[in-house]
Amino acid sequence: MDMRAAVFRGPGEIAIEDVPKPALDAPTDAVVRVTHTAICGSDLWPYRGQEDRDVPSRIGHEPMGIVEEVGEEVRSVAPGDRVFAPFVTSCGECEFCRKGLHTSCVNGGFWGGEDGGAQGEYVRARHADGTLVRVPDRHADDEETLQAILPLTDVMGTGHHAAVSAGVDAGSTCIVVGDGAVGLCGVLAARRLGAERIIAMGHHEDRLALAESFGATDTIAARGEEAVERAQELTYGGANHVMECVGSTGAMNTAIEVCRPGGTVGYVGVPHGIEDDGLDIFGLFMDNISLNGGIAPVRAYADELLADVLGGTLDPSPIFTKTVDLDGVPEGYRAMDEREAIKVLVKP
Amino acid sequence: MDMRAAVFRGPGEIAIEDVPKPALDAPTDAVVRVTHTAICGSDLWPYRGQEDRDVPSRIGHEPMGIVEEVGEEVRSVAPGDRVFAPFVTSCGECEFCRKGLHTSCVNGGFWGGEDGGAQGEYVRARHADGTLVRVPDRHADDEETLQAILPLTDVMGTGHHAAVSAGVDAGSTCIVVGDGAVGLCGVLAARRLGAERIIAMGHHEDRLALAESFGATDTIAARGEEAVERAQELTYGGANHVMECVGSTGAMNTAIEVCRPGGTVGYVGVPHGIEDDGLDIFGLFMDNISLNGGIAPVRAYADELLADVLGGTLDPSPIFTKTVDLDGVPEGYRAMDEREAIKVLVKP
Repeated sequence: MDMRAAVFRGPGEIAIEDVPKPALDAPTDAVVRVTHTAICGSDLWPYRGQEDRDVPSRIGHEPMGIVEEVGEEVRSVAPGDRVFAPFVTSCGECEFCRKGLHTSCVNGGFWGGEDGGAQGEYVRARHADGTLVRVPDRHADDEETLQAILPLTDVMGTGHHAAVSAGVDAGSTCIVVGDGAVGLCGVLAARRLGAERIIAMGHHEDRLALAESFGATDTIAARGEEAVERAQELTYGGANHVMECVGSTGAMNTAIEVCRPGGTVGYVGVPHGIEDDGLDIFGLFMDNISLNGGIAPVRAYADELLADVLGGTLDPSPIFTKTVDLDGVPEGYRAMDEREAIKVLVKP
Repeated sequence: MDMRAAVFRGPGEIAIEDVPKPALDAPTDAVVRVTHTAICGSDLWPYRGQEDRDVPSRIGHEPMGIVEEVGEEVRSVAPGDRVFAPFVTSCGECEFCRKGLHTSCVNGGFWGGEDGGAQGEYVRARHADGTLVRVPDRHADDEETLQAILPLTDVMGTGHHAAVSAGVDAGSTCIVVGDGAVGLCGVLAARRLGAERIIAMGHHEDRLALAESFGATDTIAARGEEAVERAQELTYGGANHVMECVGSTGAMNTAIEVCRPGGTVGYVGVPHGIEDDGLDIFGLFMDNISLNGGIAPVRAYADELLADVLGGTLDPSPIFTKTVDLDGVPEGYRAMDEREAIKVLVKP
């Protein structure tokens, strides 16, 4: 049986094609009909030719939808349930899942291949009990709520991981480097954790305005040394908590430069170009700056963030500035690539 | 007035020359007659041409000696006192000194220049109250004790910083990468902090034997992938606490490879070559490994480590495997460069 899905056909080329629909394989699998998903900043790296990726390959890793079928060992979800899933699958039972580091799950993996990418009509969720997060029935069809939950599949959990990794706490002064979806969610996360002063650094006035509405107390739209100097002025020599939400060499080194000696950079942006261009390791070393973080174990944060979304105190949905259907996915990539949209919501 | 001191004259060239003797300049200065000092692994980087350094320049940064003269504002030491000092000076009063991050002192700096390098007859200690550590009179002339205290000027404090930065605690399993003086002191520090299992990785059988006498429970003398595999076998997939005590790209990346997902690499080796050769940032990112540490604030650790040395429970002096006088300093560099000596004690 076939379904329709987005397929990566090389840099700049996303096609909507008929592909095999995933079916149950293991007794711990579930098949989910995708109703909502999104295009991620990290999808743009292969799209821009800045990261290798198989051609052709299914793409998308932020699935939300309705469970269609479950294997016989699945206990936590049943057909008809509204669920979402993080950008990696996880068993929920290994050492690392128990520790809250689901991205290092010894049984988990990425979406794609025969399991399907999330930018498609169906996905097969491996280890459904560990991977899927159920949305309570009373909220299962409320479109506004669903759009606020969807970022928990990736960017909201990732922004939260940046804040946690940077040690942001009640009363903290922190700097958020990057005004993309992750940076904006990082601002929300820092505010949620009680940061008193949140300085957002970026390059786009409209996004920094959104950062302010999310809780940023100061914004810096400058670039390069001017931006660093402004951040150091505002913090009298750097912040103890810096959240790096981009992953480029420039952003990492800016984060190190605006961090106070002895402080912590929480980084969550997928590193690209850093091995070639050189991390400012001497800056880290001389100032005893800690580099914490990495790929965000968003499954670990899903329950607490979901509770806040359902409780009405957390709403990252304004990051979605454009909505497309499955046929509109190529246009969605174009719009994000050209920075017309912050993040694109896809309703297959 | 002149004195004799070691002078760096370019790669491979250390000369003993007559140079101006430092005198009091500020009211917070002290002049110290150096009785004991050492040659550091980091002195070897310029010696080997692997790091730029002014030619000519005074060298050495591990001074111990007798206070000869103090400025009128100095309160904590007086002429005749036995003192030692860390490899950087520090005021003891700024935000960073109060925080225990004396290496970021806003008033401090490195030895050398007109203050003198420690490989010479005298040094001028800036901010004497903050910089100098006094040895109690009853121990001030006990040569064995002094040789056990001398490493507190640098390598013992640095090894301790690696252990603290890696989060080593009672019951920990940790891996120490590097069997030089810092790595060996790192083993001592880990044992002192209560680590249960200490795996020392290095390339020299004699040094690893010393690591065992210092408390290493396992040693790995292999290189490259074989060494990494052995460490992963011993720890069933990596240690949560890894101490990087070299600073080279290879050692940093080995430390990342043997660190368990979610674990911490405490690094203290002066980075060299890493900007060019590339840190394994993807390894850090995918495994959420924290990189903590940097240049060691050994002044912060001096009091607690000194108490243990004086109490007889800490003795790093076996790292000194060769002793020279001032004229023997060039020979000391040669012996360390050719790895005949682990660390050279200098008695000017």
